[in-house]
Amino acid sequence: MTKLEDIVSLCKRRGFIFPGSDVYGGFAGTWDFGPLGVMLKKNLMDAWWHYFVEMRDDMYGIDAAILMNPRTWEASGHTATFADPLVECKECKSRFRADKIAAGIAESVTTDEFLATHTKCPVCGKENWGPIRKFNMMFRTHVGAVLPEDTQDNPDLAAQNIAYLRPETAQGIFTNYKNVIDTIYPSLPFGLAQQGKAFRNEISPRDFILRDRECSQMEIEYFVAPDTWEANFEKMRASQHDFLEQVIGLPSDHIHEYDVPAEDRAHYSKRTIDFMFDYPGGEEELMGLAYRTDFDLSNIQRASGKSMEYRDKVTGATFIPHVIEPSIGVERLFLAVLSSAYTEEKVDGKDESRIILKLPENLAPYKFCVSPLLKNKPELVEKAREVYEKLRTKYTFVTWDDSGNIGKRYRKQDEIGTPKCVVIDFDTMTDDTVTVRDRDTAEQIRIEINKL
Amino acid sequence: MTKLEDIVSLCKRRGFIFPGSDVYGGFAGTWDFGPLGVMLKKNLMDAWWHYFVEMRDDMYGIDAAILMNPRTWEASGHTATFADPLVECKECKSRFRADKIAAGIAESVTTDEFLATHTKCPVCGKENWGPIRKFNMMFRTHVGAVLPEDTQDNPDLAAQNIAYLRPETAQGIFTNYKNVIDTIYPSLPFGLAQQGKAFRNEISPRDFILRDRECSQMEIEYFVAPDTWEANFEKMRASQHDFLEQVIGLPSDHIHEYDVPAEDRAHYSKRTIDFMFDYPGGEEELMGLAYRTDFDLSNIQRASGKSMEYRDKVTGATFIPHVIEPSIGVERLFLAVLSSAYTEEKVDGKDESRIILKLPENLAPYKFCVSPLLKNKPELVEKAREVYEKLRTKYTFVTWDDSGNIGKRYRKQDEIGTPKCVVIDFDTMTDDTVTVRDRDTAEQIRIEINKL
Repeated sequence: MTKLEDIVSLCKRRGFIFPGSDVYGGFAGTWDFGPLGVMLKKNLMDAWWHYFVEMRDDMYGIDAAILMNPRTWEASGHTATFADPLVECKECKSRFRADKIAAGIAESVTTDEFLATHTKCPVCGKENWGPIRKFNMMFRTHVGAVLPEDTQDNPDLAAQNIAYLRPETAQGIFTNYKNVIDTIYPSLPFGLAQQGKAFRNEISPRDFILRDRECSQMEIEYFVAPDTWEANFEKMRASQHDFLEQVIGLPSDHIHEYDVPAEDRAHYSKRTIDFMFDYPGGEEELMGLAYRTDFDLSNIQRASGKSMEYRDKVTGATFIPHVIEPSIGVERLFLAVLSSAYTEEKVDGKDESRIILKLPENLAPYKFCVSPLLKNKPELVEKAREVYEKLRTKYTFVTWDDSGNIGKRYRKQDEIGTPKCVVIDFDTMTDDTVTVRDRDTAEQIRIEINKL
Repeated sequence: MTKLEDIVSLCKRRGFIFPGSDVYGGFAGTWDFGPLGVMLKKNLMDAWWHYFVEMRDDMYGIDAAILMNPRTWEASGHTATFADPLVECKECKSRFRADKIAAGIAESVTTDEFLATHTKCPVCGKENWGPIRKFNMMFRTHVGAVLPEDTQDNPDLAAQNIAYLRPETAQGIFTNYKNVIDTIYPSLPFGLAQQGKAFRNEISPRDFILRDRECSQMEIEYFVAPDTWEANFEKMRASQHDFLEQVIGLPSDHIHEYDVPAEDRAHYSKRTIDFMFDYPGGEEELMGLAYRTDFDLSNIQRASGKSMEYRDKVTGATFIPHVIEPSIGVERLFLAVLSSAYTEEKVDGKDESRIILKLPENLAPYKFCVSPLLKNKPELVEKAREVYEKLRTKYTFVTWDDSGNIGKRYRKQDEIGTPKCVVIDFDTMTDDTVTVRDRDTAEQIRIEINKL
């Protein structure tokens, strides 16, 4: 069984993901994508965009600013309720998320309920707690000419200029719904899709990129006539499976639908399916599919005083559309792909094993690696460069490797998921054939350069 | 001469760019990309990435977090010096950027110098000013379990947890330099490229998307051996022109190089060329090309205590690489493209004019529009859908339009820059030919469906 540490280690070793601000000792809850990670992340995001937006007639893109008018978060309920229970140890002043350090309590825990659990401080071991306080997970900042000292000297000015980093991309779509209707007036059902950053000030970020403070989301708000929601929900559900399993190649037996029961759903949702995935650390949410009714558009209509009604092009009837929302985090998808691809295999006849990233070809950062068998033979290097340049003009994603010996190169290419290694050797010089080695089987075949 | 208002108006009317949080009356300095804008923006960003990263052997991607360890901004000098002069009217409490309301003073203006200009308050007309204060343009926030009241009750905790939204993407590259060397150890010269958001708390955002508070940057830090900087600078300079003029199609006579004289350059730069562009409002910076020496890596080495030295693969010599940095804002590029493409032409023989967005084909959101001549003739609509589906399987970027009459559709497609309109009429039903209308010339030709 693959362990999360193995993947974290591979990610750092091969340049997929580094801890954020690593050179300064890191910065909790942030991660940076390195050269290989950028390629895989881009392949994932482009595949999603192509499948859900470009290939469809009924989808349009939105790219909203991260900084939004704070009225957005009043109307959506985030200012009031997007909060975790924070508790402080009065002895050592450490702060914790109450429901993470005490067993069997909910996020809505009260001070009395928490005290009744007789939890000891994980840092100093004492039991002397302050009250439970609601900690809003939105990052706050001030927009405009507010100086740091204004928070004390001029609190009114400071309060008037508060803004938040968006905690979700969804509201950037809902606030643009009216502008889209007014400009391109699409027929129902239609969807607005967005890829972009969202921020959550987790009290204790953890689990590598699964619970970070800054993530990339890919969300669609799919607007439908109210009485068609169930049929559209089912279609969207099927599309999600198709994308995850056919396009991205995730193993379907690792994906489990969890139909969230009424009492656990967000109050606005009449149906929610969590798509759970078997990650190395256990089952975790990969994505969500929610029927959000007209909750968001109605809130915006109330808060803005502007009509969110849609006029049906055929019947002329007016109504506020209902919404189906598939929402996925890029980092969660990234980790699902990596952990499905990560394989450790014994090498035939040897007492050693090799690590292989069995990525589907469409996701692999490089499709081919071209190498001279020996790097100190100029004629081999020259011929290999020739083959490399030739392949590059056909396929962009070709890499060159002449480091170490050929065995080490294979190990490296296996670990970064390159499907084929093309090796130029002395036979190439006489018969214009090369060795092509397959990542997954380690089998080697001879092939003419012209047939590559 | 195109006016900026015309472009702003087209952007909103056709769904390229909406004011941020428009439904709530906007949010100064933020802009949202609508369906058409997302397509054009993605085409621009992908074209840049393809040209500078995917097509080259010597470039790698980085995608760093927006929230970085604050030591980053100490080392880079941003905490101390990334500031504008702020002045407050003591009468009406309005705040201004001093060098923008008084003529002939520099950003480094002192209180006495400002008072000597005898500037009146643009809001209340009085002349009663407070002192000049340095206003740091980085957005501040608190990361981790810091409650709003902590800024007063627990200022130490609050101060320890300050973080900033990155004001530039460059430092996200420099802080990853060592990890890249340690993992993929590329040969010099090599570049690290990043596309991502950067934030500047402008006191008075203005000029549409030219001076916004949140923008997308595309930056390369190109690491070179110190004695090769001039040759590499020249190569990079040529590549920038090639990209802007050949790939993106900007008119070369609108681009003006401004070789920044020593006294105006950032202190670390030994050479900087600003690429200025003739925008509708006048000449403005489009991008910058700077030789940054070893300034950033040396600062990081000092601040982190970790060696930033590179060991040459051939000679074994060790040194800190020097850096050439081309840096471009996506929004500035977007506006340059739009304003070059925006054309108003008299319609032949009529007393009216049409607006055309003469976008290069590789950038146009849609390549084709397919339309039935009349939308109330089911046989035309059906045939048109057939042609549409056929084109869609070949090219993704095809749009369908059956709104209004054919004249209105042409106007609309002209305005969003669709190069070709394909119209299905009664002749199509008998001879399988269609009308193809050219956006720029408005000429129409008949062509067989199979030859489309």
